[in-house]
Amino acid sequence: MRLATRAGRAVLVSSDGTTTLDVAKVGDGAFGPDARGLYERWDEFLGWATVAGDREGDALSFEELGPPSPDPRQVFAIGLNYRDHAEESGLEPPVSPATFTKFVGSFAGPVGELVLPAETVDWEAELVVVVGRRADKVAAAEAWSYVAGLTVGQDYSERALQLTGSPAQFSLGKSFPGFAPQGPWLVTPDELPDPDRLRITCTVNGETVQDSSTGNLIFSVPELIARLSAVLPLLPGDVVFAGTPAGIGGTRTPPRFLRPGDVVETTVEGIGRLRQRCVGF
Amino acid sequence: MRLATRAGRAVLVSSDGTTTLDVAKVGDGAFGPDARGLYERWDEFLGWATVAGDREGDALSFEELGPPSPDPRQVFAIGLNYRDHAEESGLEPPVSPATFTKFVGSFAGPVGELVLPAETVDWEAELVVVVGRRADKVAAAEAWSYVAGLTVGQDYSERALQLTGSPAQFSLGKSFPGFAPQGPWLVTPDELPDPDRLRITCTVNGETVQDSSTGNLIFSVPELIARLSAVLPLLPGDVVFAGTPAGIGGTRTPPRFLRPGDVVETTVEGIGRLRQRCVGF
Repeated sequence: MRLATRAGRAVLVSSDGTTTLDVAKVGDGAFGPDARGLYERWDEFLGWATVAGDREGDALSFEELGPPSPDPRQVFAIGLNYRDHAEESGLEPPVSPATFTKFVGSFAGPVGELVLPAETVDWEAELVVVVGRRADKVAAAEAWSYVAGLTVGQDYSERALQLTGSPAQFSLGKSFPGFAPQGPWLVTPDELPDPDRLRITCTVNGETVQDSSTGNLIFSVPELIARLSAVLPLLPGDVVFAGTPAGIGGTRTPPRFLRPGDVVETTVEGIGRLRQRCVGF
Repeated sequence: MRLATRAGRAVLVSSDGTTTLDVAKVGDGAFGPDARGLYERWDEFLGWATVAGDREGDALSFEELGPPSPDPRQVFAIGLNYRDHAEESGLEPPVSPATFTKFVGSFAGPVGELVLPAETVDWEAELVVVVGRRADKVAAAEAWSYVAGLTVGQDYSERALQLTGSPAQFSLGKSFPGFAPQGPWLVTPDELPDPDRLRITCTVNGETVQDSSTGNLIFSVPELIARLSAVLPLLPGDVVFAGTPAGIGGTRTPPRFLRPGDVVETTVEGIGRLRQRCVGF
């Protein structure tokens, strides 16, 4: 099942990705328009959505879509979660998930413009996990059942601010408006052949800059759910940015950052594609 | 004006701090029970609350109160924002507000038990700011008009986790359940003689461990609003933990951490007092 949002309203996306159906307009109004409320009744919704199946809907416009979970209570973002990226950053692989946040003011839909606030903005392709059930001290072996689904994310990062001072400004430097595009939709894990091993790529102007697999995550999706929920409960609709593989621009020689006119495309296998066109500051 | 929450509902607190009035039950139902919605209409609400004045209400029970803004979209927490605390931590004073988050799962009301998840939990008395109007690139000189009010907060910190790895785990180590008590109520700036200079104290079992003034903040409340809103818009109901002065336990010789049975009291002048009794893990 594929779930997106449009103007803040939850919409089902057909399995061929061409049409959408407003969740609130079907199913005898059992589910309101509000995506947060929907994640709070996720198990019930899943049962209903399965019965609803594929129906005729509105033609899908990617430009209109928002992030699949637009109003999460908590946004977890994980640093250095691929060994090759920790190495290129000159840092030890973490002993526990290096956790910061992307403030929700940075959220955006899958397709649009990215306003560059500085000359040192970098890309980071990421798998994004959305929580579907309250998860409190969950074992990794049970963790997938707490996941509503997966989507594609970018963790755009303004390196000059991010790497200022100690503690470093990870949360602020990665939270300019538009720095957390997500989508185009949430895909439930049952639709993916192997949700633990998905190819993840990033291109800039068509040139591949990142190409890895979520199978290379140091802390896998179930391990992240387990480790985070050992500290505090994860809540329905919560979002987890799982970290980026090697290939960022800032650690290249010379460093490479995004310029106005650049087009960044990010994909995760079996889910879909983000596309941002950079514009000047 | 003083605003609190009880069972998630917004309540007005009388000026003598003894009774509460359910916001949704008065004013012709103009304002719903939901505190987030109320912050979204803050200016309108202020006008109404002024007319409502002090009325007969229910007796106030501190144990029933929640945090004044229980469902914020964004929680900003500022590290090392008093010079004497940066010094005791052996770190340079920051050149920009060192920003992390306290995840909302750590929120609690002003009075109750604090479950210690480890043997290295520390205290940090803090002034907490709640945003009342969307603030996008606001100048410091205008910033107070974007503040709904101030409350008292504690930034409880599990030092062993917080100081693990690089980047340090500020957000996770400070977000165990109950680690962000706030209250007892929000006080609007007009009720405070000088909202830029408020005495802030913390005691453990009656012994004073922190005693400073918010006048010693490196980045003052208006400066924080200006610096954060330069990166991304602050939204109504957003919460800012402004940092703690010197006197934490972890940098003492020998270090001192909270033990079961300890009672922590935190005050900010003109606002009120938090009180947590520590219980074992």
